[in-house]
Amino acid sequence: MSIFALFSKFSRRLPLNYVRHQHVNASRLFLDEFGDPGKVVKKEDFSLELPQVMSTQVLIKMVQSPINPADINTIQGVYGVKPNLPFTLGNEGFGSIEEVGSEVKNLKVGDWVIPGMNAWGTWRTHALEEEKNLLKIPNDIDPAMAATLAVNPGTAYRMLKDFEKLNKGDIVLQNAANSAVGQNVIQIARQLGFRTVNILRNREGIDKLKQELQDLGADYVLTDEEFRSSKLFKSGDLAPPKLVLNCVSGKAVIELVKAMADNATLVTYGGMSRQPLVVPTSAFIFKNIRLVGYWMTRWNWKHGIESHERREMLDTLCAMARQGALRAPKHELVPLDSYKDALARSCDTSRFHEAKLIFKF
Amino acid sequence: MSIFALFSKFSRRLPLNYVRHQHVNASRLFLDEFGDPGKVVKKEDFSLELPQVMSTQVLIKMVQSPINPADINTIQGVYGVKPNLPFTLGNEGFGSIEEVGSEVKNLKVGDWVIPGMNAWGTWRTHALEEEKNLLKIPNDIDPAMAATLAVNPGTAYRMLKDFEKLNKGDIVLQNAANSAVGQNVIQIARQLGFRTVNILRNREGIDKLKQELQDLGADYVLTDEEFRSSKLFKSGDLAPPKLVLNCVSGKAVIELVKAMADNATLVTYGGMSRQPLVVPTSAFIFKNIRLVGYWMTRWNWKHGIESHERREMLDTLCAMARQGALRAPKHELVPLDSYKDALARSCDTSRFHEAKLIFKF
Repeated sequence: MSIFALFSKFSRRLPLNYVRHQHVNASRLFLDEFGDPGKVVKKEDFSLELPQVMSTQVLIKMVQSPINPADINTIQGVYGVKPNLPFTLGNEGFGSIEEVGSEVKNLKVGDWVIPGMNAWGTWRTHALEEEKNLLKIPNDIDPAMAATLAVNPGTAYRMLKDFEKLNKGDIVLQNAANSAVGQNVIQIARQLGFRTVNILRNREGIDKLKQELQDLGADYVLTDEEFRSSKLFKSGDLAPPKLVLNCVSGKAVIELVKAMADNATLVTYGGMSRQPLVVPTSAFIFKNIRLVGYWMTRWNWKHGIESHERREMLDTLCAMARQGALRAPKHELVPLDSYKDALARSCDTSRFHEAKLIFKF
Repeated sequence: MSIFALFSKFSRRLPLNYVRHQHVNASRLFLDEFGDPGKVVKKEDFSLELPQVMSTQVLIKMVQSPINPADINTIQGVYGVKPNLPFTLGNEGFGSIEEVGSEVKNLKVGDWVIPGMNAWGTWRTHALEEEKNLLKIPNDIDPAMAATLAVNPGTAYRMLKDFEKLNKGDIVLQNAANSAVGQNVIQIARQLGFRTVNILRNREGIDKLKQELQDLGADYVLTDEEFRSSKLFKSGDLAPPKLVLNCVSGKAVIELVKAMADNATLVTYGGMSRQPLVVPTSAFIFKNIRLVGYWMTRWNWKHGIESHERREMLDTLCAMARQGALRAPKHELVPLDSYKDALARSCDTSRFHEAKLIFKF
């Protein structure tokens, strides 16, 4: 491409008052040893040098990025995938495009993007990235929703779509209904026409919490104890669920399995009880139930950025978000400089059910 | 059909010295209340009246029929399916054709048959049955093999075929390797070209037992303790199994799951420990394992007598039996009159691993 052509491309894309960056003052949170999240994570300020000519790359200014339980486990070195160190932290979040290279086709300044791969390192203020590694999302949705779109709503969406062919009105049973994924399940199931039976642990303010979940669209909300003594499925009022979503594990699984329809599927995506699943043998043999797992990371490995499934999911979730049918979890925005405090707070399991912390850059 | 035609059909089918039965003196074991197998089962002698004209029916003289654990559980009223009472007992066994109706197409006197449906009532000396409800098997295989062909070898065959696409040399891991199904798994896997890693409980005479399983074709035989401390899969000598067969359940499942390959399937077909399965949450999420169940009865419900799958399975198993590649389990033949003693002995779990008792009529 001639220099003229290059210039002409630029001139069509950049605002008139544009001064091309030579470098950007940036920061990131990174890990060079596993350990206590409140202690081992380090912040680094650095100068991000931009290449003379950016062709297929874009400069991203990160906007918001959440602290997820998976980030905490990664820092502790106990997550399913152990990264090579040093490692830029953060698995989810979105940025706004600040500058585009001459060959970039589908992104422009001001667009919002999320990284297409896992463990991209979202806890940084700026990044230079190839267009092909990014997914565009609408830039008129709630920023906290945009920051938390990829992992939890994706998990909820896939679990509702990929394991059982559900019909309108079918029942989905889930525990940990107040978790981020649980809230997404309630909202997305409602949009897809399924009904949800939601179990959560009894706690202070349970009535207010139940009301909140009902406001999100939950059809039934019960505490563990209420579910155990409930005649919901036994009375014949509700058909037993074909799909059960489990984020608790432990002995509570027995009650879930008892409620399941013949040939139904239980999907495990978390184990908040820190206990293994306990499953009656007879349910496998005589009810022919099936137990599987779900992990968003694995799904993303199998379904590249270019895949139809990936795009369809993102479009659907973004459309729900724009309609207000899918809302961000309760959250609190924190500046990157408060990361030590934020990470320490995120480790405190006693605040498991408090607001999610989201870095605002 | 004219009387002459009828006669002509008969004359072609029946031996010259044939005298047509008017009735047969028969006996059966039946249940009219659930309870202790040594006590509640009753024997009834009766006269089986034959119709004047048998068209599509055959008269069967039962030859051998085993006492299976499922029979014991049925009598106790704790099996997955509870029959309506009174109920003729026996789920497995074979008979020899004594007489065929005029319209019978594919069976002749002297053929061996097994019932095509579950819970047909094999613990009876004679039966009149429609040809379409019977499956013919070769009448030159070991009678004890013929009597025990339908349930356990079928279970082993289907578990090896239906859940994972295995290649020659692939590893199948199983516990309860000395059970009837376990021994079938060893033999059938060998015929299909798969290798088996076999776990069994330590006991008196373990070395002899190991040798017996190796003689059947087992590639590796380990006690629970040996398996726990084994480096078989960790050392990289053996690829981790894609298929695991579980008849024990309980905490032992944890060790099975640890050994499993990513995306592998564990099939549960029994729970000899009488404990629920204990399964680590992380294996579902990070290894994407799948847990399913297998029950021969359900498979038979779904695959009728006429189905290609049913015939293919039976032909394959019979061919293996004829070659001596599939042998009957250790067994002891008992007369029907000793049923009280035989049933009491079959309930005694301390002789779980002794010879199977088979009624010889």
